[in-house]
Amino acid sequence: MGVVLPFEDKAPGTAAGIDDLVRLVKADMARVNALILSRTGSRVTMIPEVANHLISSGGKRLRPMLTLATAALSGYGGEGHVRLAAAVEFMHTATLLHDDVVDASTMRRGKIAARMMWGNEASVLVGDFLLGQAFKMMVETGSMTALDILSSAATVIAEGEVLQLSAAKNVETNEDEYMAVIRGKTAELFAAACEVGPVIADRPKAEQAACRSYGMNLGIAFQLVDDALDYGGSASALGKNVGDDFREGKITLPIVLAFRRGDEAERAFWRRSLETGEIGDGDVERAIAILRRHRAIEDTIERARHYGKIACDALALFPNSAHKGALLDTVEFCVSRTH
Amino acid sequence: MGVVLPFEDKAPGTAAGIDDLVRLVKADMARVNALILSRTGSRVTMIPEVANHLISSGGKRLRPMLTLATAALSGYGGEGHVRLAAAVEFMHTATLLHDDVVDASTMRRGKIAARMMWGNEASVLVGDFLLGQAFKMMVETGSMTALDILSSAATVIAEGEVLQLSAAKNVETNEDEYMAVIRGKTAELFAAACEVGPVIADRPKAEQAACRSYGMNLGIAFQLVDDALDYGGSASALGKNVGDDFREGKITLPIVLAFRRGDEAERAFWRRSLETGEIGDGDVERAIAILRRHRAIEDTIERARHYGKIACDALALFPNSAHKGALLDTVEFCVSRTH
Repeated sequence: MGVVLPFEDKAPGTAAGIDDLVRLVKADMARVNALILSRTGSRVTMIPEVANHLISSGGKRLRPMLTLATAALSGYGGEGHVRLAAAVEFMHTATLLHDDVVDASTMRRGKIAARMMWGNEASVLVGDFLLGQAFKMMVETGSMTALDILSSAATVIAEGEVLQLSAAKNVETNEDEYMAVIRGKTAELFAAACEVGPVIADRPKAEQAACRSYGMNLGIAFQLVDDALDYGGSASALGKNVGDDFREGKITLPIVLAFRRGDEAERAFWRRSLETGEIGDGDVERAIAILRRHRAIEDTIERARHYGKIACDALALFPNSAHKGALLDTVEFCVSRTH
Repeated sequence: MGVVLPFEDKAPGTAAGIDDLVRLVKADMARVNALILSRTGSRVTMIPEVANHLISSGGKRLRPMLTLATAALSGYGGEGHVRLAAAVEFMHTATLLHDDVVDASTMRRGKIAARMMWGNEASVLVGDFLLGQAFKMMVETGSMTALDILSSAATVIAEGEVLQLSAAKNVETNEDEYMAVIRGKTAELFAAACEVGPVIADRPKAEQAACRSYGMNLGIAFQLVDDALDYGGSASALGKNVGDDFREGKITLPIVLAFRRGDEAERAFWRRSLETGEIGDGDVERAIAILRRHRAIEDTIERARHYGKIACDALALFPNSAHKGALLDTVEFCVSRTH
């Protein structure tokens, strides 16, 4: 049961997608992909094996595309955006590798998680290698400001992840606390990926801040929809099973909302299943039924729409262009996606 | 039974130590320590808790002292060396946190390993946070060359660790393969820590290369002695138990030498104990007895002396000075230490 929402700002049949974004950055993205491939190379053969297992499993590479698109939006004519985009993707991949260890995940992007094949050790260390390569590529671009933004993002991401760890299995986490987690663990890298575009193009502060705000709010919306989809997307399309977050005791916004809106019997259910991890037959279905009763999944997506609108407004100061249009469509894509 | 070697180049009673090094960099080191403390701060309380558990357990902080001393040796008069030294220590601490997860260690520096108290998750993520903070501090110094050196070091360290993983439990690892591991996982950070001193002082390439070579060879010697001490230091002084490497199936130089020099019965013993991990009563003692029979521990320290000499020769182009003397004494200290 995918959660499909109508497109508010588009005529029927013209569903926004990331097709325009993909098309506009296609040539640059080919160079990013070549760079990614060459920079996972190492005489230590386990490194390209582990790195390419994850990299070749093909996420959308949304973050590096955002760096390329915001650089183009800023009229950038240099070479640095390709390296920064690859660095952004490496930071993301390193985070995924470390997350799998932290979450003890068995699957990632519909494939067996790297740690299941090569062990936690390899996931930790190859993540470190990719992080080091990311910084090397940033250094090569020569922009101290971009370096500052992305290295700050690295610490904020780690803070967000630790915060998530502290909140883990605590069903009394409130919405503000949850938002602090996803701002750090997800939205910060979107923000940094978008901010470095105008930064290397030496655009005014207001444009840098606009792109940062676009990325931050897009990232929040992206994560909120992700969390909603975990309770509603189809298993095959999502690349993981519905209810994974539930089984792992992850406190996401649907749970935060349902816990507060529920009665004592429901709260006891959430405490037992999420805090103690005692999950039996039918519990995932019961969880989804409670979430639906309280409109917790729908309202999570409604919250995502709110942040999506802020992202779009952030770009208002840029004149209309193909790149701006593609970035606006990307918001709609992230908010409306069903997988 | 500590392995105590006579000091070749010193009169009896004037044992070289790091006292001079400690004294010469004392004022700067106080600023490094203050910076370390302030940069582990985070509104996410678990981060300073985990970081300070390890940081306050007080290693010698040899690596940041080397950065300060090579900066002073190079006549540096600016402020950047303090931040670079703190960054070097953060890189080292991040590596230790990740290593504990990789090795599943229970102890570190005589204290319970952080992962035993806060979980593998926290060790991975706080390590990532410290790595991010390290890069932020490097960016603040504004030296692209120093950034390049230290970010390259981050990838080489991770490569060395992965290489060690690939070689793990393989008793047929040869000396060259073992050396490649420790050059990466240990010596590279010593080399980078020493190289950035003359780099921020804008000294000629030859002096940068000299300090790098000093650090690289000192780091190799340091690790070789560490590996020898694991089979000979006293448990209390070492902060971990004698034979820990053996119990963990770690292939270090003493093992590499003894395996090659031994007979078939001994090789079968090494295979059983290190490759399959079947370790019974008396096996640690038997391992040490075999190592001693083949002079494997003594020869490992002899190899360390060889690299120590190269480290000292590397500094020959610098005129004599208090800082040069302290750096030379540091080599002797590392080679001759018994814990």
